[in-house]
Parts: sequence; structure tokens; C-alpha cells
Amino acid sequence: MKIALAVLLAAAVANVPATAQTAPAIAEDFKPSPLNQPGQQYPQVNSQGYVRFRIAAPDAKAVKVSLGLGGRGGTTLNKAADGAWTGTSEGPLDEGFHYYHLTIDGGTFNDPGTLNFYGSTRWESGIEIPAHDAEFYALKNVPHGQVSQILFPSPSTGTQRRAYVYTPPAYGDHAQERYPVLYLQHGWGEDETAWANQGHANLIMDNLIAAGKARPFIIVMTYGMTNDVRPGSPGGLSSFDIKPFQTVLLDELIPYVDSHFRTLKDQPHRAMAGLSMGGFETKLIAPKNLDTFAYIGLLSGGTVSLDDVKSFPGYREKVKLTFVSYGSRELDPGRATPPGMPRADPRANAQQIKSAGVPSVFYVSPDTGHEFMTWRRSLKEMAPLLFRD
Amino acid sequence: MKIALAVLLAAAVANVPATAQTAPAIAEDFKPSPLNQPGQQYPQVNSQGYVRFRIAAPDAKAVKVSLGLGGRGGTTLNKAADGAWTGTSEGPLDEGFHYYHLTIDGGTFNDPGTLNFYGSTRWESGIEIPAHDAEFYALKNVPHGQVSQILFPSPSTGTQRRAYVYTPPAYGDHAQERYPVLYLQHGWGEDETAWANQGHANLIMDNLIAAGKARPFIIVMTYGMTNDVRPGSPGGLSSFDIKPFQTVLLDELIPYVDSHFRTLKDQPHRAMAGLSMGGFETKLIAPKNLDTFAYIGLLSGGTVSLDDVKSFPGYREKVKLTFVSYGSRELDPGRATPPGMPRADPRANAQQIKSAGVPSVFYVSPDTGHEFMTWRRSLKEMAPLLFRD
Repeated sequence: MKIALAVLLAAAVANVPATAQTAPAIAEDFKPSPLNQPGQQYPQVNSQGYVRFRIAAPDAKAVKVSLGLGGRGGTTLNKAADGAWTGTSEGPLDEGFHYYHLTIDGGTFNDPGTLNFYGSTRWESGIEIPAHDAEFYALKNVPHGQVSQILFPSPSTGTQRRAYVYTPPAYGDHAQERYPVLYLQHGWGEDETAWANQGHANLIMDNLIAAGKARPFIIVMTYGMTNDVRPGSPGGLSSFDIKPFQTVLLDELIPYVDSHFRTLKDQPHRAMAGLSMGGFETKLIAPKNLDTFAYIGLLSGGTVSLDDVKSFPGYREKVKLTFVSYGSRELDPGRATPPGMPRADPRANAQQIKSAGVPSVFYVSPDTGHEFMTWRRSLKEMAPLLFRD
Repeated sequence: MKIALAVLLAAAVANVPATAQTAPAIAEDFKPSPLNQPGQQYPQVNSQGYVRFRIAAPDAKAVKVSLGLGGRGGTTLNKAADGAWTGTSEGPLDEGFHYYHLTIDGGTFNDPGTLNFYGSTRWESGIEIPAHDAEFYALKNVPHGQVSQILFPSPSTGTQRRAYVYTPPAYGDHAQERYPVLYLQHGWGEDETAWANQGHANLIMDNLIAAGKARPFIIVMTYGMTNDVRPGSPGGLSSFDIKPFQTVLLDELIPYVDSHFRTLKDQPHRAMAGLSMGGFETKLIAPKNLDTFAYIGLLSGGTVSLDDVKSFPGYREKVKLTFVSYGSRELDPGRATPPGMPRADPRANAQQIKSAGVPSVFYVSPDTGHEFMTWRRSLKEMAPLLFRD
């Protein structure tokens, strides 16, 4: 107790964060982020994961970027001699994809240098910190599947709804073969574009299939915040009700996909998985519909306990795999708990069901948080385990 | 001469534009633009085509919108009591789709209220003025085709290139049937996303096919500015060379499409068309490759003269239809000539080849300019004329 207090006091006296004393020099090897718009030189990323921003707004009073050290806090830009606002993140960011936006004179805008991605119920700027294992989602010279936009009728919501369907490379060539299907959901504030755009789900599958590591299967991605139909307030979680989405998924989308694609239409060849809120949706729907789904994946979106397994009739017999994953930073002791996240350590539940003989895999993405790098890696780990009959 | 001077003097004395005296009251029936991001209330459009903007940036010095009267000029916003910058266009805008952006304290940004569309070599804000004939591109409860992203290998450019492929509603259901193909190009500064996003090409086809007005066919849309590979300067027209794109199209994309989709692989079942620069590309490629294409469409992108017809061997025998279209405002006497546009009146050439018995159709979109409403209507007019064998 005395030692801890002394350490705290010493830090207070020094009055600088420990990292500032030991931080390495920032390597001046900045390159444009892979997600920049065509021809745009900024934002840039260096080999250590620092990000440098440059925003032209010569008459602005203040420009801030919502991204900062390790994804937390923000970066305040300063006006350079040429009138552009520039700044470098205080520290390196985690590998992979990050959403961000600018605050310019009190208003929220996107960085005109980079592409936009739907998150937080709006199109936000995105940046990519090249990962050491980026090869698994890289665009390579291998046979590519297609990502197809479909519009399917939804009588329950009175709309024509959009979904994206990944079909594996051989789908068009083998006109007789039928394929299993993974229904894969995005997180809160995202939409049906997320898994292909931010997640590179199609490229991950193309690469796995080319390497012979996964059985070719179809992936269907649709909008999961069906519960929210109030104009002006997309994405409200306060009144979350799974039934509207469950109706769209089970009664409308699955029959549409089964009649418009060459699918294997039975339970052993159907999986459901999702990230964050999409994981909660998966847990709310799949275990109660085990004549429909044989595989369940929760990516940073809850866990399956032994009590869960016991409470859902037929879970032990019918679920061929329970896949649960998190980013390592989500499991840090003392981490801030995102709204809706389970407070219990997911490792305990995973160990519990594994010990009880429930077919399950628990995966932790190293050095990533509640972000898409965790989910890209999770898909890469999960896909080879699906439909191995 | 005296009369003209007197009129000029009278206008000078009055010191107000004639439109200001006769302008009707602005109808206060503004509604969110159909292209707004989910839940966003601004920008808004009224029944007369006026646009009202609202941008939150309380500490900004100046906020301007690039859209104004009839698409020309801009709209300067004023700071309202609540700190948001608001303003209404000086006059009504033409029906249909318009690109725009904001200038905030000297910097260029997008309106966070609306969706972005790739134009002018960057993702820009878009707004939609509901058209009186909007039904033909509306999302209706009819069978829908798919818009599929494909990634095809391009040895000539050393890349994996992206294209979008529209397949008609019955494509997935009739596993044996083969379809004709239209290769459809975007304009300068746009990309392969434009025809589906801004143009609603898929919905136009869905509606035409549902009404029995067009033969179901496939549409392939890819990036046409292949000539520009210089980093930092996408879209340069100064060094325009058709060969790189022609190689991608003829030697790489068409063979890929013919081997991965159920196409009719012969000349009578292949068309090429494009808007603006895509029209020029079409004219540079198709008439010289008449064993590949049987239909040619130039939408606000040049004309075909009788000299042209005579200069291309086989044009009379092999081209089943020459379709040329413009927006009426592009044909206004004294109109500003967009860079690269032909200065001659396209109607003369159209009349000339028609009189000479060349199968051709000339279409003018009423009350629209060099914008996507012209090209949506052009596709609607052209599609029923294709592949009618």
C-alpha cells in the first residue's frame, strides 16, 4: 500500500505521463493511408502506427481529429505556415481500421482526404494502420468471389430491403453446385456495407479458399437495426426488440436467398454470426432456432455459458460449433466496458463450455480492441471451422 | 439597336435582376432530400425545387454551398440564432441529382447531412430534386436484379480491377438462359459506382423489365480512366490515351465477363454506351471494333456524323443502332461549352445520319443539363431499343 502510494506520488511530481519519457522518436517514413481517396496524400501513417493529418481550412479557428493515442482521445491540429492544419497522433494507433471525424469550428465533418465508412449511424472517415498480418485480407491475384447487392421484398416492414451476398469464386463457374450459407451481422451504428467495406470479408474468404483453408460458402449480410423505424433517430438501442429483425431474417431473407442462390437449404449448412450488437442478435436468434442454424459465432458480442447451453433445448445436439472471440484489449482488466458489453470475463464461460464437451472455440485477437481488425481476424479463424462435414 | 440599349439601361436603373421581380414566393413545404443520411433532416427540398441547407459549425467565419440557382453559382449561408449556418438556394434547381460541396473557412468539405457520390475525382455530397417522372427509377415492389462487384485480373495494368455487373431479375432463377451485355461507362471524374449509385441503372432496368418494355440484359460498369496512373493526379485529361482502357475492356474485362456470366458472346448481343467522357470512349472504341459491338450509345458525349459513318468500315452494315442523347440545357444557344464538348449542334448530325438511313435515335431530356437526370432518362429511352432481335 505504501509502495503504490509512493509510485502515484512520484508520477504526480514528475507531472508527465510515463510514455512521454520513454517514447521513441517518431519515424519520418509516413505514407498515405491505404484508404485515402484517389490521389490524396493525407492522412498518412508511419511504420510505427503514428498518423499524420493535414486539413486545408485556412480561415478556421480550430481543427481537431477524433483519433489519438491508441484510438483514445483526439489530436489537435495546428495551423502550419502554408495555412493547412497539421498534426500527428500523440502515440501509435492499433493495427487495422479506425473510424474518425474532424471537428472544425465546432462542427462535425469528414476528412476530405479519405474514404467514408458507415459507422455510428453516419458515414465516417476511415484510416488503416497496415497490420503485420495484413496479407490475409489483401487484394491478391487469386480467383475472386463476387459481392452482390440484392433487394428483397419485406412484407413485415413494407419495404424493399438491401443485403449483400458474397458468392465464392467458383459459384458462377459450377452452375450445379450448391453451397452452405453464413448469415453475418454488423455492429451497432453500422449497416450491411460494413463486413465487405471495413471488414474485407470477401477478400478474407477469397484468400482462405485459394489456400484451401476454408470450404467455399456463401455469406449474406443485411441491415440488423430493423427495430428502429423512428424517423430522425436511427440506431436507438433503448427500445431494442429482436422480433422485427428476426422476422426479416427468418421469414423473408433466408427464403429469398434460398430461392435466388444455389444454397444448401438445411440446418447443417447454415451458420449465423455477428460482431458486437450483431453477436447479441445472433445469440437472441440462433439458439432459439436450432432447426435453422448449426453454427453460432459471437465476435466481441457476448458469450455462451454452460447455463445458456442447458437452457436452450437441443443446443448440445444441434450446434456443431460455438465460436466466441474478442480483441485482447477488450479483455484488459480495468478496461472501459462499452455499453451493452458483458461485464463478466468471457474466458471463464468459454473454458466452462469447453470443459463440458460443448464443441467450441475461443479466439483472442492480439493487441486489438473493439474494432474491425479483431473481427477480420475472427472471420479468418472462424471460416475454416464452418461446414466441415 | 436603340431599343436594346434602352432595355439594358432600364435594367440598370432598376438595379435588380428581372427574376427577383417575378419570382414566386418560396413554398414552405421543405422535406429532407431522398439522399440524406439516415435520420438527417437537412438538406431539404421544397415542391418548387428550392434547396435549404443547414450546417452546424458555430465558430466558423463563413460557410458556402457550391450549389445555387439552376445549378450555377453557389449559396452563401448565414449564421442563425442557434449557431447553425442556414440558407436557401436563390432559385429552384433542375430536377434530379446534383453534386455539391461546402466551403468552410476556406476548406472544402462534404455536407454531413447527405450521402456521398464519386464525382470530380472525389466523393462529393449529393442531393436529389424529386422529378415529376421519378417513378421510372423508383425502388418498387417488382422483381429486382442484382448489382455484383467483381474483381478481375488485369495483366496489362498489373492490378485486380473492379467492375459492377447488373444481372436482370430472372438471371438467378433461369440457370440455363444466356443474356446480351451492355458495357456502360461513367463520365470524367466518376468511377464504376456512378451508374448504379447516381444513375439508379439497376432500378431503371428492373422497372422496364417488370413492365415488359425492355429485354432483360446484363450491364457491366467499370472504371474508364485507366489512362491515368500518375499518383496524385487522378483524372487528368491532358494526356488522354484510349489504349490502356481499350486493352482492359476488350482483352481483359469482356473475356472475364463472358467466362463468369451466362452471356450471349457474339457481336449482335453486345452494346457499348457511356455518358460524357464515357461517350467519347465509346466512340473511340466501338466503331473500330464492330465485330465486338452492335449497338452504340453516346449520352451527352459527342455525336456520330455521316462522315463518321463513312469513315468506319462496316458501320452501316454492323451497327444496329446509334443512340445519341443530350439534356435540353446542353443544347441551349449560348450555353457554356463544357471542356471537351463538341461545339457543333448535335441535332444536325443526328438529322444527317437519320436522313441517310442509318438506324439511329436522337433523344433530348427536357429541362436538364449535363447531369445524371439526363442520363437516367437516356438509359430509360435507350434500353428498350437494345437487342430486339
